[in-house]
Amino acid sequence: MSEMLPALEALIESFQKIKGVGRKSAVRMAFEVLDFSEEKARAFADSIIEAKTRIKKCSNCFNFSENELCPICSDDSRDRSIVCVVEDARNVISFEKVREYRGTYHVLGGSISPLEGVGPEQLKVKELLTRINNEDIKEVIIATNSTAEGETTAMYLARLIAPLGVKVSRLAYGIPFGGELDHADEMTLSRAIEGRREM
Amino acid sequence: MSEMLPALEALIESFQKIKGVGRKSAVRMAFEVLDFSEEKARAFADSIIEAKTRIKKCSNCFNFSENELCPICSDDSRDRSIVCVVEDARNVISFEKVREYRGTYHVLGGSISPLEGVGPEQLKVKELLTRINNEDIKEVIIATNSTAEGETTAMYLARLIAPLGVKVSRLAYGIPFGGELDHADEMTLSRAIEGRREM
Repeated sequence: MSEMLPALEALIESFQKIKGVGRKSAVRMAFEVLDFSEEKARAFADSIIEAKTRIKKCSNCFNFSENELCPICSDDSRDRSIVCVVEDARNVISFEKVREYRGTYHVLGGSISPLEGVGPEQLKVKELLTRINNEDIKEVIIATNSTAEGETTAMYLARLIAPLGVKVSRLAYGIPFGGELDHADEMTLSRAIEGRREM
Repeated sequence: MSEMLPALEALIESFQKIKGVGRKSAVRMAFEVLDFSEEKARAFADSIIEAKTRIKKCSNCFNFSENELCPICSDDSRDRSIVCVVEDARNVISFEKVREYRGTYHVLGGSISPLEGVGPEQLKVKELLTRINNEDIKEVIIATNSTAEGETTAMYLARLIAPLGVKVSRLAYGIPFGGELDHADEMTLSRAIEGRREM
C-alpha cells in the first residue's frame, strides 16, 4: 500500500536510512508522523536542519559542539591533565552521566578495522598525539569498546603513547566482553573508571 | 552532555515525540542523523514536510491518500461489494501484504473507548453507514483489533449493520487474543480472513 503513496514511501525510506532502524519500525514511525499536526511535523523537520547546521565537531577533542570548542573543552573546571579516549561522541554522553569523571575527552571517530578499511589515519589519532605533545597531559584512559576492533585500537594507541612518558590506562572490570559502551549502565561505567589498569 | 547542545537536545526531543520512541532510541537516532551528510539530512527533513503536505485522507474510506480517492478506492479491479473495516490505516498495509483480499476498506480512525472518551461519533461510523446505503455492499468484514475496545467496536457495528440486510463477518482464528493487527504475520492474517464468521 505504501508503495502506492510515494510521499509515504519516501518518509518510510528516510527513517530506514537511520542505522539500526528496520522496515517495521520505519513504517510505525512514518505513520506516527502522519498523525502529527502540520506544526509539529514542521518543528520536527526544522530540528533536523537546525541540528545539522549548528552542530559541528570540537576542534580540540572532536566531540559534537555548537562552537569552535565543545562545552567540555571550554570548561575551566575540567581536569586537562587526563584525557579519556572514546570511539564515538555518544560515549561522551555515557561518561558524563556518571558525573564522576572530570577530565577531558578525545573522540577517535571509530576504531581500527582492517576488514572495513579503517586504519589509524582515518581516526583522530594524529590529533591525539598532537594534544599529548602540546597540552600538559599526564594520563590517557583508553575507553574504546570492548570488541575486537576496540581492543586492537587500544593496543595500538597504548604502544604509540607509552613511549611519550604519559600514563596509559584502559577501562577495566564492568564492561561485559563483546559489549559496547552505549549499553553499559551508570554503575558499570563507574566501576570501570575506578578499576582502570595501566597498559 | 546533550543538554549543553540545545540543537542536539531539540532533535532528541523531536524523536521522543514519536509515540513509542523512548529517550534511549531518540538519542541513538539523533546521533545517527548528525552523522548524515547535509544532503541526506535535508532529504529527511523534506520527506517529513512532503508527506504531511501531500498525504490526506481518502474521502471514501479514510485511508491515507495523495488524491481525493486512495489507490484502492480508485482501483476498478477491486471488489466493491465487500468492505473490510479497520481501526487504523496501518492495518490496510497489513492486509494488502497478504495479497489475498480484493475488496475495499473503511478506516474508522480508532475504536470505541469510553475511558478515553472515544464514542462512535468520533469514528467514521456514520460514513460507513452512508457507504452501505449508497454503494452495492454485500458484506462487511469487521477487522478491528482483538482488544476489549476492538471487540466492543465490532459488537457495536454488527448490531448497527445487520438490520441493513448486509452480511457482517468478523475476523476469526489466527489473531491471538489481546493482540493488535499490526503485529500479526501474513499467515495469521491469511487464516483470519479465510475463517471469518458471520456475526
